[in-house]
Amino acid sequence: LKKANQEESRQHNRRLVLNTIYNSGEISRVDIARHTQLTRTTVSEIVSEFIDAGLVAEVGLAPSRGGKPATLLKVDENARLMIGVDLAEKEFCGALVNLRGAIVERLCLSIENENAETALERVYALVEQMLVLADQPVLGIGIGVPGLMDPATGYVRQAVHLNWHDLPLGDLLHQRFQLPVHLANDCQVAALGEYTFGAETANRNLIVIKIGRGLGAGIVLSGQLFYGDNAGAGEIGHVQIIEDGEPCRCGNQGCLETLVSSTALLQKAHLIAPGEFPDLIRFTQAYQAGDPRAVSLLEEAGNTLGRAIIHLVSALNLNRIVIAGNLTCCGEGLLASIQRQVQNGVLPALAQQTEIGLATLGDDIVILGAASLVLKHELGLF
Amino acid sequence: LKKANQEESRQHNRRLVLNTIYNSGEISRVDIARHTQLTRTTVSEIVSEFIDAGLVAEVGLAPSRGGKPATLLKVDENARLMIGVDLAEKEFCGALVNLRGAIVERLCLSIENENAETALERVYALVEQMLVLADQPVLGIGIGVPGLMDPATGYVRQAVHLNWHDLPLGDLLHQRFQLPVHLANDCQVAALGEYTFGAETANRNLIVIKIGRGLGAGIVLSGQLFYGDNAGAGEIGHVQIIEDGEPCRCGNQGCLETLVSSTALLQKAHLIAPGEFPDLIRFTQAYQAGDPRAVSLLEEAGNTLGRAIIHLVSALNLNRIVIAGNLTCCGEGLLASIQRQVQNGVLPALAQQTEIGLATLGDDIVILGAASLVLKHELGLF
Repeated sequence: LKKANQEESRQHNRRLVLNTIYNSGEISRVDIARHTQLTRTTVSEIVSEFIDAGLVAEVGLAPSRGGKPATLLKVDENARLMIGVDLAEKEFCGALVNLRGAIVERLCLSIENENAETALERVYALVEQMLVLADQPVLGIGIGVPGLMDPATGYVRQAVHLNWHDLPLGDLLHQRFQLPVHLANDCQVAALGEYTFGAETANRNLIVIKIGRGLGAGIVLSGQLFYGDNAGAGEIGHVQIIEDGEPCRCGNQGCLETLVSSTALLQKAHLIAPGEFPDLIRFTQAYQAGDPRAVSLLEEAGNTLGRAIIHLVSALNLNRIVIAGNLTCCGEGLLASIQRQVQNGVLPALAQQTEIGLATLGDDIVILGAASLVLKHELGLF
Repeated sequence: LKKANQEESRQHNRRLVLNTIYNSGEISRVDIARHTQLTRTTVSEIVSEFIDAGLVAEVGLAPSRGGKPATLLKVDENARLMIGVDLAEKEFCGALVNLRGAIVERLCLSIENENAETALERVYALVEQMLVLADQPVLGIGIGVPGLMDPATGYVRQAVHLNWHDLPLGDLLHQRFQLPVHLANDCQVAALGEYTFGAETANRNLIVIKIGRGLGAGIVLSGQLFYGDNAGAGEIGHVQIIEDGEPCRCGNQGCLETLVSSTALLQKAHLIAPGEFPDLIRFTQAYQAGDPRAVSLLEEAGNTLGRAIIHLVSALNLNRIVIAGNLTCCGEGLLASIQRQVQNGVLPALAQQTEIGLATLGDDIVILGAASLVLKHELGLF
């Protein structure tokens, strides 16, 4: 808690102006001053800086309100790029993303049997490629990784699938590429991505639950990623649901992700109908064709997830929960089960207000989330 | 997101100075300036205002560092009082609380068979009595109520035990007593109380779970009460644990508080040993004497609560969880069961960091919490 010094105030005002332009779409200097309560002189100075930097452009005249029509400004969404990287279990994907979340270039490297060293080399190669393809200045590198990250220091504390432990990934990338690096857990990053580039809503709070080979959540509070005391917030995939359940890769038993994940679903499908559902595509086809076995497995997964979600709703009373990841292909069935659990399983007044839906960003949610992490930190947007 | 105007800046600086003095215990003007980065002139002006208002006092000289020794300042903890009110199920308690959380006067009214009207009259009577007893200016009235509150408007949305629905309690009290009124759910208020006046810790995050006739939680994030989107955060007593469980007063079945609460514990004790445990005092005596039936019932309650707490730990990754309320008399047994569930039921890296303990404020936790709500809002402390 300190008094802001002059440079901090200037920085604050710059961010204020940029946020106002970004969120308005198009806006005049006068309206920026009105909205931010900064003086017209201050606004004009800051806007000039942004125009000189190519970040903001004049795009025409506002409809006249009697006097001289005002010039409209907008953020040039292609003036800067972010590199968003998703270090997922079977492939590393990277993309160049513009300031509005459009993917300009994309590259995926499949990874199999990498060791800690070669996995890191693959990350270097991916970022290098992205930089070669970038035709605009790059603001920084954002990375989402399954596991426990330390966003403050850029350390990967634990990423089991890559055998990374206490790896200073942020520093390594920063030294190599001389760009700002921001990383976080992939589900946390996904939540920020959906918040930033997903369906528009007035609500500044959001929970995203991402189902893939594992399961995890990300929580956005007041427009900011909530990390918890040790950056592990959202690790709901490892809540124990069944005391003597199946062993989980975390070392415990009966974790939520041993019951609700694409892996778990296909394993269960295999037990019921060996060989009939070799992959998620086939499972989805069967589900969509109304195969009662697929329908029932999905309903079971939805019920189990719903019974975990009622704890989130009751603890946090956040009205917007979004399901992301690779079971959203069967999303409606999943949602129906979850919603039923919420209706019966939390205080009625809270249940009524809770909306549970599907993410809008699809498979790109982590890439876009990683890019939004850069946007937030480097331009102070959102 | 706006530029701060001058009056807001002055207000911010005043709060900065008062917080610095309050948290330092004793401090000189020079050290306040150093700590806040405000100029010595600004600090001296603000300190003069506080001294004139009687809120801050000069208490002697600091050890000389060579030059003229500096005068030390402290907050006069008895210069102002807050009224803290706990509208619990069987009695309404009110207290005059000083700025350090010491209870100066206390009054409890037992309430039985009140209707909505007479319950309100009892609240008026309680506050009136407190005001008569106050020998210093009263900053405001803080109230903790079981149920759903709207802290922003001062409305009681739902307090079933008093048959209050959409009651503008804040406005009613404000009109009657011409004092600021702040209210929130009793468990939320308890969390703020423990954070403000309980055991000191560097952690600005805290979860308090309060067990009484019901069960609920309060969450403090970055030193602020977290309310969620509709002020219902912490309503974990109504998470459904057993799908076809006992009916709960909320209308659902098998809620956590039907399994873990003093009511539930005594009901179960009655089934096992009719008449032997008529009240919590007798139950506690039996537990402390090692009665295996009491020990086992408590262990069961701890396990059930622990299995709900693993969801909180996994979702929020907050390291400090505190159990408050009337089962803390058997606290060690309860904690042991909860800790075991956490050890087995969340991601090992998170489990290791989580500390679960007992609240330090005892039966006064809601009263003190309600007072701390006033302290926070009216003086901007913490």
